[in-house]
Amino acid sequence: MKKFQFICDYSEGAHPAILQRLAETNMCQTVGYGEDEFCDSARKAIAKRLGREDLDIHFLVGGTQTNATVISSILKPYQGVVCADCGHINVHETGAIEHLGHKVLALPSLSSKITPEQVDACFADHYGDANHEHMVQPGMLYLSLPTELGMLYSQAELKAFRAVCDKWKAPLYIDGARLGYGLVSPFCDLRIEDLPDIADLFYIGGTKQGALFGEALVIVNPALRKCFRYHIKQNGGMLAKGRLLGIQFGTLFTDDLYFRISESAVNKAFRIRDAFRAAGFEMLSDSPTNQQFPILPDSLLPRFAERFGFEFWQRAGEGLSAVRFCTSWATTDEAVEALVSFIAEIADKK
Amino acid sequence: MKKFQFICDYSEGAHPAILQRLAETNMCQTVGYGEDEFCDSARKAIAKRLGREDLDIHFLVGGTQTNATVISSILKPYQGVVCADCGHINVHETGAIEHLGHKVLALPSLSSKITPEQVDACFADHYGDANHEHMVQPGMLYLSLPTELGMLYSQAELKAFRAVCDKWKAPLYIDGARLGYGLVSPFCDLRIEDLPDIADLFYIGGTKQGALFGEALVIVNPALRKCFRYHIKQNGGMLAKGRLLGIQFGTLFTDDLYFRISESAVNKAFRIRDAFRAAGFEMLSDSPTNQQFPILPDSLLPRFAERFGFEFWQRAGEGLSAVRFCTSWATTDEAVEALVSFIAEIADKK
Amino acid sequence: MKKFQFICDYSEGAHPAILQRLAETNMCQTVGYGEDEFCDSARKAIAKRLGREDLDIHFLVGGTQTNATVISSILKPYQGVVCADCGHINVHETGAIEHLGHKVLALPSLSSKITPEQVDACFADHYGDANHEHMVQPGMLYLSLPTELGMLYSQAELKAFRAVCDKWKAPLYIDGARLGYGLVSPFCDLRIEDLPDIADLFYIGGTKQGALFGEALVIVNPALRKCFRYHIKQNGGMLAKGRLLGIQFGTLFTDDLYFRISESAVNKAFRIRDAFRAAGFEMLSDSPTNQQFPILPDSLLPRFAERFGFEFWQRAGEGLSAVRFCTSWATTDEAVEALVSFIAEIADKK
Amino acid sequence: MKKFQFICDYSEGAHPAILQRLAETNMCQTVGYGEDEFCDSARKAIAKRLGREDLDIHFLVGGTQTNATVISSILKPYQGVVCADCGHINVHETGAIEHLGHKVLALPSLSSKITPEQVDACFADHYGDANHEHMVQPGMLYLSLPTELGMLYSQAELKAFRAVCDKWKAPLYIDGARLGYGLVSPFCDLRIEDLPDIADLFYIGGTKQGALFGEALVIVNPALRKCFRYHIKQNGGMLAKGRLLGIQFGTLFTDDLYFRISESAVNKAFRIRDAFRAAGFEMLSDSPTNQQFPILPDSLLPRFAERFGFEFWQRAGEGLSAVRFCTSWATTDEAVEALVSFIAEIADKK
Repeated sequence: MKKFQFICDYSEGAHPAILQRLAETNMCQTVGYGEDEFCDSARKAIAKRLGREDLDIHFLVGGTQTNATVISSILKPYQGVVCADCGHINVHETGAIEHLGHKVLALPSLSSKITPEQVDACFADHYGDANHEHMVQPGMLYLSLPTELGMLYSQAELKAFRAVCDKWKAPLYIDGARLGYGLVSPFCDLRIEDLPDIADLFYIGGTKQGALFGEALVIVNPALRKCFRYHIKQNGGMLAKGRLLGIQFGTLFTDDLYFRISESAVNKAFRIRDAFRAAGFEMLSDSPTNQQFPILPDSLLPRFAERFGFEFWQRAGEGLSAVRFCTSWATTDEAVEALVSFIAEIADKK
Repeated sequence: MKKFQFICDYSEGAHPAILQRLAETNMCQTVGYGEDEFCDSARKAIAKRLGREDLDIHFLVGGTQTNATVISSILKPYQGVVCADCGHINVHETGAIEHLGHKVLALPSLSSKITPEQVDACFADHYGDANHEHMVQPGMLYLSLPTELGMLYSQAELKAFRAVCDKWKAPLYIDGARLGYGLVSPFCDLRIEDLPDIADLFYIGGTKQGALFGEALVIVNPALRKCFRYHIKQNGGMLAKGRLLGIQFGTLFTDDLYFRISESAVNKAFRIRDAFRAAGFEMLSDSPTNQQFPILPDSLLPRFAERFGFEFWQRAGEGLSAVRFCTSWATTDEAVEALVSFIAEIADKK
Repeated sequence: MKKFQFICDYSEGAHPAILQRLAETNMCQTVGYGEDEFCDSARKAIAKRLGREDLDIHFLVGGTQTNATVISSILKPYQGVVCADCGHINVHETGAIEHLGHKVLALPSLSSKITPEQVDACFADHYGDANHEHMVQPGMLYLSLPTELGMLYSQAELKAFRAVCDKWKAPLYIDGARLGYGLVSPFCDLRIEDLPDIADLFYIGGTKQGALFGEALVIVNPALRKCFRYHIKQNGGMLAKGRLLGIQFGTLFTDDLYFRISESAVNKAFRIRDAFRAAGFEMLSDSPTNQQFPILPDSLLPRFAERFGFEFWQRAGEGLSAVRFCTSWATTDEAVEALVSFIAEIADKK
Repeated sequence: MKKFQFICDYSEGAHPAILQRLAETNMCQTVGYGEDEFCDSARKAIAKRLGREDLDIHFLVGGTQTNATVISSILKPYQGVVCADCGHINVHETGAIEHLGHKVLALPSLSSKITPEQVDACFADHYGDANHEHMVQPGMLYLSLPTELGMLYSQAELKAFRAVCDKWKAPLYIDGARLGYGLVSPFCDLRIEDLPDIADLFYIGGTKQGALFGEALVIVNPALRKCFRYHIKQNGGMLAKGRLLGIQFGTLFTDDLYFRISESAVNKAFRIRDAFRAAGFEMLSDSPTNQQFPILPDSLLPRFAERFGFEFWQRAGEGLSAVRFCTSWATTDEAVEALVSFIAEIADKK
């Protein structure tokens, strides 16, 4: 019997429109390193969609690379980056931030989210200590949107983070590895064009959103743009054939393909979520995006695993595991239906 | 009225015997960088006191420098150091470990101590994760002895840490900034000569134990000795007039001065602790060493501060502060008596 | 009039066979991070071509990233990497090696090559100095093959480098960004299957050899393999859709496509070289590979630039510039003929 | 027969006035980390001598530490420090600059000096290259005064360096490990009070100038002062008993002791230089300061070495060695006379 993958949102190649565009442009000759016309055109398309002209946009290959390059470009040697304890940079990037010299100042999160009040207190505590130069100075804020558990911050929350960052003169950076899946969610009150007012910089994820690879970094704050291409090159993130990134993002930002891809994936994720809930399973988080985290009895895991790929996430009590099911542009209706039926079947037998 | 300092154990210069020895040797000509006869002789005296000949002993100037040099000399780029969340390297060294590229893997502590079980779980969790290469690998263990709240680990606890480290092939390093104050405590079942069997490396603190400055690093494990002098030099820790460290440690390890200094300080600390307890004050930790952490009502702090120097440590509930009183070789009976009387007086008025 | 690019060997997309294979496999579902079947199969194909089974092969995205990851994975903090002063890591990687903490120990080169004697002297000088711990210890050797000026080392030279490295117990690493163009040269007495006997590790370049991107790192020496995937991830080089690298290298190593591409490019480069020589121009180096460096009067540069893309390399005397013309899999006969005719025409008018 | 040391200027302890002052202040209680009254007072004394009030002065323990802390506090990750190829940071600090992430951009020196024109060209070349973001950006200038061969830069030269640095907006930093020996030289047209007009920051060496240890860093440029104490602490340079540095520099800057020490040493160095010259020996450099570098036949080295300590510096032709003789505050007339007689005796026998 056919096995369907929900293990992540990067199990296949690229959206067909991207592959086709790569083929069409294959023999065009361009200069390297992202200074070609495809990149220029993609930068313009993104800026237009963001409703702003004065943006500095760079294309990098992957998320860990983008995070490490951005964060180390901003912080002074004695500064750290504030983030949620479950933040990707704190857990799943092999210490890339520390590798480049900076402490991650992790705050305890609730369902993967932190609050503006926590961030404010982190700065206040630091400067309140008489010996603060013996401690790492908080230097910027990192937020994931959606978070690692698929959660969203509201406009109001984000504006409050912005106010805290303004108060302490600290840049706010948003990791948008799955940005599209967040923005299209019916539970999201944020539009992509709001982001330049909230974040000093953010990246629009491509890898998990239908590209072969690639992330589009948007630097809003002019003070953070200086010599950024040196940082990219030094950190090994400057693709020789930079055009590949321009071609991909140009395609994603033509006719809102980026958002159409996301919407379809989120709808499928909701069908899966609803099926789990209908079958009486709890969810680890109330995720309104393309990642869903049902809590399953360990005894059921092998049966699920026979038919479907998914990822173990964490223990969730005696005999219970939270697991992750992801959807993407490549998730088929056939796969969703197979999963939904299987869940219902399981529920009946309980 | 005279004000007495208990703010730390490094408020004065050096023990008079050290100053005298520096004066006596001042015009001797030696080679630099710790390769002189005074250093050799101090190394021999320490090795003798440790009951072992096969030790590699280096002198460094300060604790942060020693910790950063040792830890970065051991870890691979992708490894981190396991320690208590309140560990000095995690809190009060301005991120020196991260500055050199490594994450501090902080474990929650109870009264500043962690357990061998926690450390074992930290390693097991790492290797148990299928994607462990996406996470920082625990590479060694850092313990403070005494801890940041003046607490001690027992022989049994230390042997259990040793066993965990052996199990995971991870070096065990002990920060002994206040080692003497721990070893002489009546609550300590450890002798200095036990340390080489427990730790792969440890340092014997001088700065807080009567020297002008200086820490004696003992590398027990031959595998960790290679080219260590390069590490010291590269990290700015190789004193040109290295002899100064040899002279100081030579003096401290003549006639057990190091231990006599410590014993006197701990006895004085106990008189202070007893006075606080007799007056009905709680202590933040049950410290058996030269640092004592009474919990005082905020309203009393200004009155104490008029007469005595001490350090604010942390909030300890509504209207309560934990503060630190330290003793050292330089603490006078007069100072202790003044404090003890003052505490009793305060208590009477309550 | 049509303009032809010879500016570099990465002006176009990918060899058509690669694009086709990407399209064919696009909807296959695989796990991420290079642990999929396409990568496995590519690793096997490369190992087979190298005639060895016991090799550790990793795929990375780009050359700077590969060099920095490899070199920083090998060196101790106090060690540096020995290389030619014109070495790519010393000049054109924005200090990526230093960024990760290591000095590049640059040796003066002749026509971009260094000698085994120079390397031997570098090690001998270091250890011969009484205060060698005050200096960076040479820790490994980096060679480019072909070099930055398109030159080759002979079997004999490489064996002598190997002997020097064995003498000083230092790993030998070869940067093969353009390895294929070197191996197919009629002036090369080395076969790809000789490399594992010479180098501790080397990479087979893809970016400049017909792939969209990607480099295949071969770790021969088992001692250098440990936890290498952590290094890749930490340095931002672990592609989520790692399969893309497997698919590309699998294609390049099917039916020796890698070598056929290289051969065609080198033949075209020779036609260009011969034309320049016939026209009486000197060459900066006697390059037997796909990069050619004619020395042109500055007055001719604008005329060349109207018709052809090429890169300024360096001043080469009063009024003279050395420039670079590159060929690749994508260079057409039409382009070569246009250039050859143009050179002849220029010569006639001189 | 008594052997006299000329091997370096840090063979003894401290100038007696310093030791005495340490003894007098030993039991004073102060706060730690350089915020005590002794440090304040020393800062005032230095500022007064420099004729400027608006200076930021910090005390660090050693030269390598000071250089690494300063340089890494200034440079962006992609920047390097320009210096002479024989600069201390390039040769004798075990790559401490690279360890903290930055390339040393070494310029060829003549008799240990570089020129403003070379520095200007270094910046111009960088920005002149179309792909400059692929190269390390020169970010500041490091000069030693005196240089590693005891040489001096003139006012005019220093002003020209200043102008180049202004042109490229790059800080100018002077390593004054032996500053006093330079300033008192009859060949020096610079006064210490000129330094704040020339350098953005510089340090006044103590270790080699009569202190037990310690360097006084003067930050002139307000833009470079921000959070500097964090840098010191993070790099392990913040002495717990910071008072020791204040006491020493306070003493050195009382009644111009610093300059009197230097003058005496330079006079003695000149007697030695004159003796070598009178005896017909060449000097490696025309040093007008306390380090002298005679070139001796290798055959004479053992005879010198029987009676005097000196340091081998470098080969200086077939059968010839350049060696270094240093004087300091501790060099006795007896020692100088013994050496001068010995040289004359050698010369007679030639």
